[in-house]
Amino acid sequence: MKRTIPLAAAAALIGLPALAQEAAGPGPGVVAATDTAFILNSLLFLIGGFLVFWMAAGFAMLEAGLVRSKNVAMQCMKNVSLFSFAGLMYYLIGYNLMYPLGNWSIGSDETGGYLGAFGVAVLETVGVGRDGADDYGYAATSGDFFFQLMFAATTASIVSGTLAERIKLWPFLIFTIVLTGLIYPIQASWKWGGGFLDSQWGFLDFAGSTVVHSVGGWAALAGVLVLGPRIGKYKDGRIFPMPGSNLTLATLGTFILWLGWFGFNGASQLAMGTVGDVADIGRIFANTNAAAAGGAIAALILTQLLYKKPDITMVLNGALAGLVSITAEPLTPTLGGATLIGAVGGVIVVFAIPMLDRMKIDDVVGAIPVHLFCGIWGTMAVLFTNSDATFLGQLVPIVIVGVFTFVVSLVVWLVLRAVMGIRVGEEAEMTGLDMHELGMEAYPDFTPA
Amino acid sequence: MKRTIPLAAAAALIGLPALAQEAAGPGPGVVAATDTAFILNSLLFLIGGFLVFWMAAGFAMLEAGLVRSKNVAMQCMKNVSLFSFAGLMYYLIGYNLMYPLGNWSIGSDETGGYLGAFGVAVLETVGVGRDGADDYGYAATSGDFFFQLMFAATTASIVSGTLAERIKLWPFLIFTIVLTGLIYPIQASWKWGGGFLDSQWGFLDFAGSTVVHSVGGWAALAGVLVLGPRIGKYKDGRIFPMPGSNLTLATLGTFILWLGWFGFNGASQLAMGTVGDVADIGRIFANTNAAAAGGAIAALILTQLLYKKPDITMVLNGALAGLVSITAEPLTPTLGGATLIGAVGGVIVVFAIPMLDRMKIDDVVGAIPVHLFCGIWGTMAVLFTNSDATFLGQLVPIVIVGVFTFVVSLVVWLVLRAVMGIRVGEEAEMTGLDMHELGMEAYPDFTPA
Amino acid sequence: MKRTIPLAAAAALIGLPALAQEAAGPGPGVVAATDTAFILNSLLFLIGGFLVFWMAAGFAMLEAGLVRSKNVAMQCMKNVSLFSFAGLMYYLIGYNLMYPLGNWSIGSDETGGYLGAFGVAVLETVGVGRDGADDYGYAATSGDFFFQLMFAATTASIVSGTLAERIKLWPFLIFTIVLTGLIYPIQASWKWGGGFLDSQWGFLDFAGSTVVHSVGGWAALAGVLVLGPRIGKYKDGRIFPMPGSNLTLATLGTFILWLGWFGFNGASQLAMGTVGDVADIGRIFANTNAAAAGGAIAALILTQLLYKKPDITMVLNGALAGLVSITAEPLTPTLGGATLIGAVGGVIVVFAIPMLDRMKIDDVVGAIPVHLFCGIWGTMAVLFTNSDATFLGQLVPIVIVGVFTFVVSLVVWLVLRAVMGIRVGEEAEMTGLDMHELGMEAYPDFTPA
Repeated sequence: MKRTIPLAAAAALIGLPALAQEAAGPGPGVVAATDTAFILNSLLFLIGGFLVFWMAAGFAMLEAGLVRSKNVAMQCMKNVSLFSFAGLMYYLIGYNLMYPLGNWSIGSDETGGYLGAFGVAVLETVGVGRDGADDYGYAATSGDFFFQLMFAATTASIVSGTLAERIKLWPFLIFTIVLTGLIYPIQASWKWGGGFLDSQWGFLDFAGSTVVHSVGGWAALAGVLVLGPRIGKYKDGRIFPMPGSNLTLATLGTFILWLGWFGFNGASQLAMGTVGDVADIGRIFANTNAAAAGGAIAALILTQLLYKKPDITMVLNGALAGLVSITAEPLTPTLGGATLIGAVGGVIVVFAIPMLDRMKIDDVVGAIPVHLFCGIWGTMAVLFTNSDATFLGQLVPIVIVGVFTFVVSLVVWLVLRAVMGIRVGEEAEMTGLDMHELGMEAYPDFTPA
Repeated sequence: MKRTIPLAAAAALIGLPALAQEAAGPGPGVVAATDTAFILNSLLFLIGGFLVFWMAAGFAMLEAGLVRSKNVAMQCMKNVSLFSFAGLMYYLIGYNLMYPLGNWSIGSDETGGYLGAFGVAVLETVGVGRDGADDYGYAATSGDFFFQLMFAATTASIVSGTLAERIKLWPFLIFTIVLTGLIYPIQASWKWGGGFLDSQWGFLDFAGSTVVHSVGGWAALAGVLVLGPRIGKYKDGRIFPMPGSNLTLATLGTFILWLGWFGFNGASQLAMGTVGDVADIGRIFANTNAAAAGGAIAALILTQLLYKKPDITMVLNGALAGLVSITAEPLTPTLGGATLIGAVGGVIVVFAIPMLDRMKIDDVVGAIPVHLFCGIWGTMAVLFTNSDATFLGQLVPIVIVGVFTFVVSLVVWLVLRAVMGIRVGEEAEMTGLDMHELGMEAYPDFTPA
Repeated sequence: MKRTIPLAAAAALIGLPALAQEAAGPGPGVVAATDTAFILNSLLFLIGGFLVFWMAAGFAMLEAGLVRSKNVAMQCMKNVSLFSFAGLMYYLIGYNLMYPLGNWSIGSDETGGYLGAFGVAVLETVGVGRDGADDYGYAATSGDFFFQLMFAATTASIVSGTLAERIKLWPFLIFTIVLTGLIYPIQASWKWGGGFLDSQWGFLDFAGSTVVHSVGGWAALAGVLVLGPRIGKYKDGRIFPMPGSNLTLATLGTFILWLGWFGFNGASQLAMGTVGDVADIGRIFANTNAAAAGGAIAALILTQLLYKKPDITMVLNGALAGLVSITAEPLTPTLGGATLIGAVGGVIVVFAIPMLDRMKIDDVVGAIPVHLFCGIWGTMAVLFTNSDATFLGQLVPIVIVGVFTFVVSLVVWLVLRAVMGIRVGEEAEMTGLDMHELGMEAYPDFTPA
């Protein structure tokens, strides 16, 4: 990180003109258009990537706030660990499975791609020039890898909330490995890798209401069906609330996710090198914010009307519901449209969360309503504002992705249950995972109520 | 978010040369200067906007940390909700009221604008080209809207802290709607929309010591006068401290605000397409940091000297005071000057917070000293470093904005009090708003002391 | 922050062509290549700078989470204050000491620089043009100052964790002043200012495994040796664990640091104006993430194997260890190499933390293993992937920087101990620093267990 005048001056004297002379069009001293576009496109990936990274912290805080204090350290452990394994797996096989760049293991770009390529991710060499860049007409692979990795990790983060407070650490992490290494990238290749959902169905899912959020939701649903509800949650035909231990953390987590979503949706524009692209990113930022606001307001008003007392947890989930709902198409709606799409998401969670409880599906943080139900809603809502979308072109891919993810996840969960067990013992669950599984408490200095 | 080599290559082959040919000056393969400037200016709004968004989380954490544990969930609720309503209102009417672009409802650019235009905010169409952009010579409206919206929300965030622990949720939110939909944008149009404070008074307020911070402070002051102090705060001529329940959250909130302020002040440069602009943004970042440091150090040393024990809450407020103080002019001071301007802010809060208590003005988090008093100080301090500022050109607008905001706010608060009541009942206040108004606790697993 | 069509149009009509005409090479309407590079390089500093700023919050949360509840408010106080003093000192003398730009007080670029220049930091004038810019061929001084300042502050943040729970506030802050004003910038000038470690030893330390992290670690080690362990930590030949009071904060702090590290390492590329630079930054982001993941996974697996129960605190420190380990060379490794380098870091902390305890070196948060040991490891690991590195060229500078920092720090700590005492009284330590030194509690509403 040395910085001296001679060095910098040398860079100016030698580096830039050298680069400039490589440019076909313009004369000396001018950066080629494609250089500028390459840099700005890559920069978008980097900014978007660190914002989506930040969502990992958001999920961790949201979930740590919504579990009981005796399971908080474990929830932190799961979130840090799942993110780490996601990073490893996406490097080892996920990235190439997701972006085969024409080299499909099964299928082809023309006939429809079904299974991508196997192999570790390889970035450009250090200090790559124009000729050596993987895709000089577009952006750096390194930036793209960084950005896409964060989406794989997000999918896994969704699962951890639903299954909290009773799943064992290692089976959960093994599922994470399968999800981020295989399930997520394979189905993502069908759309974003140019596979059959893209080429044959014309499926539209801008930033992943289906490809990311509903996939996380389906995997969580399969898991919770195999895992079962927490002890004492449903008893004698009644539902016993198990309030989260730290609502400020849950609020912080929601704000973190909201912030990260600007990167999630905005950088999914995938380009920032033209007037139209940057103006579109601005639209996406504004619409994403509007949808979150719409979801929060809808949940606020609805819980006030239904229960006479507004529910902060519902309002937080309402904001997240709005965010998921706008993710399939954050670009084409007007600000008013985005607000409404988000508001419908907020309504969905307010009704779906108690509905799941009536079905004895014990989703600790409400991730299934937020990510699965609103993911479906958001994907269908593309029809309202993007004329390129068709009813079947949206519905059928939702079903295909759903069936694939749910079935494969179910099999993995069942195998894990059979082989090593996925649920902690009853005593561990009553005592809390923190003391029993980790031998420590999250808040040791404070007397439990 | 599909990415394939064919697509990317096509974009390079078709998109960029097509754009390049549109450019008047340079030959093929060159991005026009105005394209690059447009993109960089818009990018500044986007980065600045998400940083200022993050301040909403900062206010939420700061306030949740400084209220007592029985009111924490409500404080989170207010902060998420106010931000959501601010987003809705700024879209519905605020943006056009603030930026009439010459179409004043009352007044004109020439004679002095007093009331902007009514109508919802409309962004550029999707994938807009040069010809269709609202302001091709400058930046994307979408980015500008996103950025400016965050300032309106900030104003409302300031109010929620002062009135914490006894105001009802809905009257507070209705006030927020009026503040972000009408009060804030109208007065902001007088300066930033090119209205009469700008054209007739030559008022200088770079990023809003007056236009944002003192406006929030005046609205909070009007509110607290109508609302009254918390029960038990002032009794028998004595002042009873009611310590905040979570100083780590307050610290986190301060760091969040400090971070967000780089966007608040830095992106208020409003342009990043030239050498001078980006160097100026660097100055602003550095000065903003210096002022915060100055404010914190001043409060640290002063509380050490005055009370023999330094006060962490004061140090946090000192940093915020420094930030508010530098906001009216973060560009022209030297680093030393910025440190001093911030330090004076830190001194102001150390003296003003107990002074308000002696006047029985119960400002829970110290928002009036920080945002109103230091907002005034910072606006006058422009005189020290910017030779374009005049004494009356700063003072008179401070008074005009203050009288307008305070009087309108007072009327709104009085109407709200008469119509629906703004204060919770005595029992609710003693029990805490969380259990009484929301039916839940922020930290249910922990025994209150 | 006024924005009107006339103004913006004027800027387009007047400003840009005027700038364009200044450009030597291209015709009217074209931004010179060097303008674009200047802007993008400066922008990198700004983005990197605010990300590294955010690390100050990360250290604060990590440390506040890992101390006992009775010392939390003081830990917040120390972190806010040390950052503020770091800002002041780096402005007053640090920046010029670190970057003498050839004007060495002792030595020269040719013979080897040993002591930089004295004087306050001066940024470019407001609205500087090409001719007036300090280094038009490169980037804005203002952005560079902002970025580099954050590194100085990071060094001080490292120290505060080790010495927590028993050091007095003011001696600690005085040490911070010496560290950020003198120790850090002087040794940093040897490498990054072009001094003798750079010119004579060919030392390679990309973003500061040695220059930042091990320096913080050495200063902490000197401090803890003078200060001694906490009362009751080592008694009757046994080690008594003193668990941190808030593991969610510690987790949050780790995520914050992880996020900030993208700026720390990525912006240390120091340039973003070419295809190669931005692709390299992408590599750095991806490698940084991979190393953190590797460190966390290694600590997770290792603590599972060693203790049968995985340790969340170790996993958090493992992630940080991975980050420190990759900091000396985040560019040249492959993703797999980065993962391994980070994993070795994770292994180091798992063994080193109990080893320090056996040596009765009471490092409250594990900062010495993370920042010093992994800083050394990371600096030597450059040898594996960068062929420009030599064994002695890495080892000897590690030793020189270590001896310098440790000896000077030791002298300062000893002088402080002799002059004013650096340790609180026994009663204060038992009661907790919060009540005794600050007269307040961090969590006053909650009953201690």
